[in-house]
Amino acid sequence: MNIFSDRIKNLQPSIIREMFKFAADPSVISFSAGNPAPESFPKEKIAKISADILSQEPVAALQYSISEGYPKLREWLKADMQKKEIFNPNGDELIITAGAQQVMELTTKTICNETDAIICEAPTFIGSLNSFRSYNAKLVGVPMDDAGINPELLDRALTLNPRCAFIYLIPNFQNPTGKTMSLERRKEVLELAYKHNVMILEDDPYGELRFDGADIPPIKALDKKGHVIYAGTFSKTMAPGLRVGYMVGPADIVNKAVAALQTSTVHTNIWAQMLVWRFVSQTDFGAHIESLRELYKRKCSLMLNSLKFSMPMSITFTEPQGGLFIWGSLPHGELDTFCRAAIERKVAIVPGNAFLVNESERSLDFRLNFSTPSEEQIEKGVEILSSVAKLFY
Amino acid sequence: MNIFSDRIKNLQPSIIREMFKFAADPSVISFSAGNPAPESFPKEKIAKISADILSQEPVAALQYSISEGYPKLREWLKADMQKKEIFNPNGDELIITAGAQQVMELTTKTICNETDAIICEAPTFIGSLNSFRSYNAKLVGVPMDDAGINPELLDRALTLNPRCAFIYLIPNFQNPTGKTMSLERRKEVLELAYKHNVMILEDDPYGELRFDGADIPPIKALDKKGHVIYAGTFSKTMAPGLRVGYMVGPADIVNKAVAALQTSTVHTNIWAQMLVWRFVSQTDFGAHIESLRELYKRKCSLMLNSLKFSMPMSITFTEPQGGLFIWGSLPHGELDTFCRAAIERKVAIVPGNAFLVNESERSLDFRLNFSTPSEEQIEKGVEILSSVAKLFY
Repeated sequence: MNIFSDRIKNLQPSIIREMFKFAADPSVISFSAGNPAPESFPKEKIAKISADILSQEPVAALQYSISEGYPKLREWLKADMQKKEIFNPNGDELIITAGAQQVMELTTKTICNETDAIICEAPTFIGSLNSFRSYNAKLVGVPMDDAGINPELLDRALTLNPRCAFIYLIPNFQNPTGKTMSLERRKEVLELAYKHNVMILEDDPYGELRFDGADIPPIKALDKKGHVIYAGTFSKTMAPGLRVGYMVGPADIVNKAVAALQTSTVHTNIWAQMLVWRFVSQTDFGAHIESLRELYKRKCSLMLNSLKFSMPMSITFTEPQGGLFIWGSLPHGELDTFCRAAIERKVAIVPGNAFLVNESERSLDFRLNFSTPSEEQIEKGVEILSSVAKLFY
Repeated sequence: MNIFSDRIKNLQPSIIREMFKFAADPSVISFSAGNPAPESFPKEKIAKISADILSQEPVAALQYSISEGYPKLREWLKADMQKKEIFNPNGDELIITAGAQQVMELTTKTICNETDAIICEAPTFIGSLNSFRSYNAKLVGVPMDDAGINPELLDRALTLNPRCAFIYLIPNFQNPTGKTMSLERRKEVLELAYKHNVMILEDDPYGELRFDGADIPPIKALDKKGHVIYAGTFSKTMAPGLRVGYMVGPADIVNKAVAALQTSTVHTNIWAQMLVWRFVSQTDFGAHIESLRELYKRKCSLMLNSLKFSMPMSITFTEPQGGLFIWGSLPHGELDTFCRAAIERKVAIVPGNAFLVNESERSLDFRLNFSTPSEEQIEKGVEILSSVAKLFY
């Protein structure tokens, strides 16, 4: 029998998550993951804080808790957002989730009917595309230039899709391209959301990881009409295995989202929430972020310099101001052949079509991650990748 | 604008989860929660194991992990199920989830289209009802007798609802009634599932907490045709704040469920999974379970004896062989008035209609929890409840 629901029957596990298992082969240099640098985890502090929690308030850390999230962490986040002039959330506008990915899932579940459109940057993060696919949304990809999503094409896509649930955007150091949306473009996109009366889902997992240039306010900070849902996470600033993120948005939407969260995870692992709160409020979180920025700046520069030094000139790369990813573009030829040749030489990269609404579309781009590999692996991996590239270009 | 999806627009937070906030008032004796006894948490062992994990393998505990769950915990669970002759799962038939509640959500998402029927015991666990509601399923409640769901009425409900996604059952010490489905009944229900070619979702959160009578095999153990999805959890045998449960079922369904899980939580908090594995495999888990059974037997007996001693004879109670709940029934009158009078005297109980498909249906039943309150609170709370009851009966 075909037992599967319409929404799920075509859903496949993410290529990237599948690559994980493959990249577990220790002889492979993986530029394909999106993992934060393991050397960046504040391991000793986490161990100390965890011990404190489990000796000082074990029952609170082990018993059922409320679905909205650990009150102290919610309060800290609200104060932090206020301080950064992003938003001034009241009690009902911020909840804790099991990572930012759950925000994509809850937002889709809450405001997108099956076959409604979700408009996104092309390319964009495959994990979010799969969240949207899992509710049988109609995905519409809109091409980007160096300043972000193309506003004329976005306007047209919104006109052509009157049943659009929301526009999905990653304005800072986008996954997979590493591009940052300009302030001007953020304003234009927000105006388009107002004009067409649709919501924006702003995904900002890397915002804190800027290592070049000046901060640009999130779209959430520019919004005066309650059209933006904002997804944040501690996966990149602390540790992803904790699965702690947060959702900020209009109270009515967040209230429905928390009712939906309650029917799934009931609440986010409470030890992890308490751990995050103690870490951000009782240690020097600012200094920790600063050390992450330095680390990623160094790794990104090392990869970019190595690429410039050894790759054929005809292959181009974005120069991100933050985040975890560099986006490469081949001048012509077959992306698939290139990626296969690389993996045969034990270097894993992600073909760009994985990030498109229609994966069978042709692409000449590929994603490189600089956070997970060690500096040695970056140098060696780029060397191998260059030798492969020189076979074709 | 009405922005909400059809599936979510009528979803409300669970009355019980809402009561949580209310029961936080320390002057209230709460018989309304479903929390495991806080004194049962293996606090020292958890603190010790957590310290070991965070010093011995911190990166594994903090980095992204695979969506299927921590391999060692999956292997332990498979061996455990095999040992108990429940099931012989292969690699693709068991995944780790954020509590058993996520199994309800993922099963519904995976195999239930909007407006498909889900048939369940009436009354049943409100958290599961809300999972089903959150996908706009058509809920059909089938009355129970002392041996479980009524088979004639179930057969009729299945005939009347040919688009039925699955039958949802809690065979052991059911929430809310405390009733246990007989072996005979389990076989009958399974035959009906075969006859109508529908799946069964077997929710077994309390199976390990039997303190009277002999174990009865889960329906999963009786199934030879792959018609049963089984939901288990460590919430009641270890600690619910960890949010660690598991889903066992046919490989094709579990594979889709893990793809869906990946689009939501990505994976379950990995520290918690490692903690559970070390606890079940490296300490005397059997002795821990035995101590839980003794504790709950004592608390249940205390509540039942107190009720028998002081409540009016016309109010009857189930005598559960395990689990966390006793089900009371008024002979006549107004349930709402009774519950309100109790809460005014600072004792919280849950009105039975909360557990019905249609909450506005009339009920004379109420749920009492004996695991959360202390023994003192049980005695005092029953005394107060009895004085309230004597006003009406």
